[in-house]
Amino acid sequence: MKASIITIGDEILIGQTIDTNSAWMAERLNLRGIDIHQIISISDQENDIIDTVTYQWDKVDLILVTGGLGPTRDDITKKTLADYFGTGLFFDQGLFDRISTFFNQRNIPMSDAHRLQCYMPEGAIQLQNDMGTAPGMLFQKDSKYLISMPGVPYEMKWIFENSLRPHLDSLVNDDLQIVHKTIKTAGIGESRIADKIQDIIDQWPPYISMAYLPSTAMVKLRLTAKHKDNKSDEIDTWSDKIVDRLGSIVYGYNDTSIESALQALFIEKGFTLSLAESCTGGKIASQLVNIAGASAYLVGGTVAYSNEVKMKELNVSQETLGNHGAVSELCVREMVLGAISKYNTDLALAVSGIAGPGGGTADKPVGTVWIAWGNEKNILTKKLQLTKNRSLNIQRTTYIAINLLRLFLEREQI
Amino acid sequence: MKASIITIGDEILIGQTIDTNSAWMAERLNLRGIDIHQIISISDQENDIIDTVTYQWDKVDLILVTGGLGPTRDDITKKTLADYFGTGLFFDQGLFDRISTFFNQRNIPMSDAHRLQCYMPEGAIQLQNDMGTAPGMLFQKDSKYLISMPGVPYEMKWIFENSLRPHLDSLVNDDLQIVHKTIKTAGIGESRIADKIQDIIDQWPPYISMAYLPSTAMVKLRLTAKHKDNKSDEIDTWSDKIVDRLGSIVYGYNDTSIESALQALFIEKGFTLSLAESCTGGKIASQLVNIAGASAYLVGGTVAYSNEVKMKELNVSQETLGNHGAVSELCVREMVLGAISKYNTDLALAVSGIAGPGGGTADKPVGTVWIAWGNEKNILTKKLQLTKNRSLNIQRTTYIAINLLRLFLEREQI
Repeated sequence: MKASIITIGDEILIGQTIDTNSAWMAERLNLRGIDIHQIISISDQENDIIDTVTYQWDKVDLILVTGGLGPTRDDITKKTLADYFGTGLFFDQGLFDRISTFFNQRNIPMSDAHRLQCYMPEGAIQLQNDMGTAPGMLFQKDSKYLISMPGVPYEMKWIFENSLRPHLDSLVNDDLQIVHKTIKTAGIGESRIADKIQDIIDQWPPYISMAYLPSTAMVKLRLTAKHKDNKSDEIDTWSDKIVDRLGSIVYGYNDTSIESALQALFIEKGFTLSLAESCTGGKIASQLVNIAGASAYLVGGTVAYSNEVKMKELNVSQETLGNHGAVSELCVREMVLGAISKYNTDLALAVSGIAGPGGGTADKPVGTVWIAWGNEKNILTKKLQLTKNRSLNIQRTTYIAINLLRLFLEREQI
Repeated sequence: MKASIITIGDEILIGQTIDTNSAWMAERLNLRGIDIHQIISISDQENDIIDTVTYQWDKVDLILVTGGLGPTRDDITKKTLADYFGTGLFFDQGLFDRISTFFNQRNIPMSDAHRLQCYMPEGAIQLQNDMGTAPGMLFQKDSKYLISMPGVPYEMKWIFENSLRPHLDSLVNDDLQIVHKTIKTAGIGESRIADKIQDIIDQWPPYISMAYLPSTAMVKLRLTAKHKDNKSDEIDTWSDKIVDRLGSIVYGYNDTSIESALQALFIEKGFTLSLAESCTGGKIASQLVNIAGASAYLVGGTVAYSNEVKMKELNVSQETLGNHGAVSELCVREMVLGAISKYNTDLALAVSGIAGPGGGTADKPVGTVWIAWGNEKNILTKKLQLTKNRSLNIQRTTYIAINLLRLFLEREQI
């Protein structure tokens, strides 16, 4: 089954709003075995809506439309779709009663615009909306479908999960069962991963496929089985083979983030962590703190932006700073020891670098970053040579450092 | 002038990636007076690319295409577009030399795929890309244009700003001069701002308009003049009236961020800052460090996640923690004093709260946050009651705290 998604609203076309609804729906439709043909954002002009629906109607089996509903929009979408499907509007007393209750509960007076909202297309199935006043609509013509929902994300999501999903399952009348599993990796790039596992991929049956999904310093591998039988056991078997081959670059599955994988490792091993950040300026700490429960292992951290703070707070020696500079292996080593001692933790992670865009030298160009991590007995270090883009350098350093620390906990005898 | 944006890549159609590029381009095109007709995401299939370009070519004057370039994609987009425009490919030795240099500098071996990238369409203008290996391309046919750029956001943005912009200015040959000015505010909401300035808006001529652009804890007011004459002086006059009325909630204009406004204030006044963060866990520091030159005033910070660190590192008294808890006015006051003394700074900012989703009590529900800021003689405090959403709470607290500190520097006699 093929679908297209149409988003109606000028706020997307002027760049005011990033369209997050479409990705959310696309992911869920895709997991349900529905391929997305196109995602289109258009204005809320009648002829634009008609043109686009007509063009897509020939190409797909299902069209999802969001936006252009609700009292402030004059319900252009609803009228236009009713015209397109050649149906009239009727006053829906049941809907009016529901909306009245909705407003009474919130002590908001009901306006004429809300009364107008209760005119609904004849023949369309209403999709109940407990999060707002405009219900969704499901139109059918021949063996194709169009679904219209409000553009407010939490309303759309509620309708999708609660009112649309039962219909969706009956619309998708293929016999395929779709199973997904995502392997999360960090540390090596897409092409090197492909080199390592291509022979495994070459062995599997045609109903199994895999997508590489790269992001900053990480690559996700999404395995999919499409078969009339449920192939989750087989997906697990192939996934295990890949994970065996890739080893410790794999940090988890599906929704696991690298920060939560690190947190789980620290808690499992009963270790504590402190941070000493220069060029990342607290970014590593704030990423780790995004995971609820971080206080179980993350004791504290120092943002050591000046040389004075590095010396006074982290015991970096004047000699090191004088002879080697703040962006040096020796300096980050001393920062690790300083943080361990100050915060009385088992491990520490330290970063010092030239984030840019200024501050580089011939010896140490912009993008030079030193990372050190470990415990009192065993400190490892790594030098990165990144770009001239400050925010990108900070982001990459953050994820690379978190991953190096994770690998240390996975691999080292500590 | 009308434009459409086409994004090529399966990762958007499977919901893996949210398309942020299109909003970024739409905003900039819109500011340049170009209306966006549609934004379309399609797969990287040749016939899909041809269909969509053909369909849009009739409707608009300019098409921007992103994605589908680069060594792992087999350059489908480039070949397809060359076919569409009826032109051949040639090996570009100059491009090859540039890419070779790019790889040599990074000590990365060059692959055959990269060599293939150097075949470029004849007759297309190349748009230089200093952030990656695939240049952009500008095709012209009759009086219409198609621009193709890589989908990697920082590459696309670099090409847009540096290589495309000069061409764009010559493409837009309308007679209207469009002038924008954006007033940046923080501290009060959109509807309260509207109440304060509606009488000013009611006075201005029809060729001037304004949009409210709200984001986390901030509202931007974007003034636009569209007229055959350049109305920048008049925009300045109206902007000054609004700024006079709004007072210190205005922190800057156009591309000024609140972090850079704060940095400018600190540097102007010659003060230094330290931070003591509990629930924000380094997020405030990392936001301030995003601005190049932050080291001129930001000396350092402590991520004080545990009570032990609050006591040992920031001199918070056991009595305060015992009688009032870590999320209390007294605790954040002591954190400010502790940070000032530890880092020897003029001012400090401290935050302690319950970010959630767990950890709340009847007295201090999830979302309770205390903020303190000031110098040794004058410490101000504020209590926030936010939501149950952890990442939203951290983000809001960060921006509110930065703004409170900014207002302190603007308003207080220090």
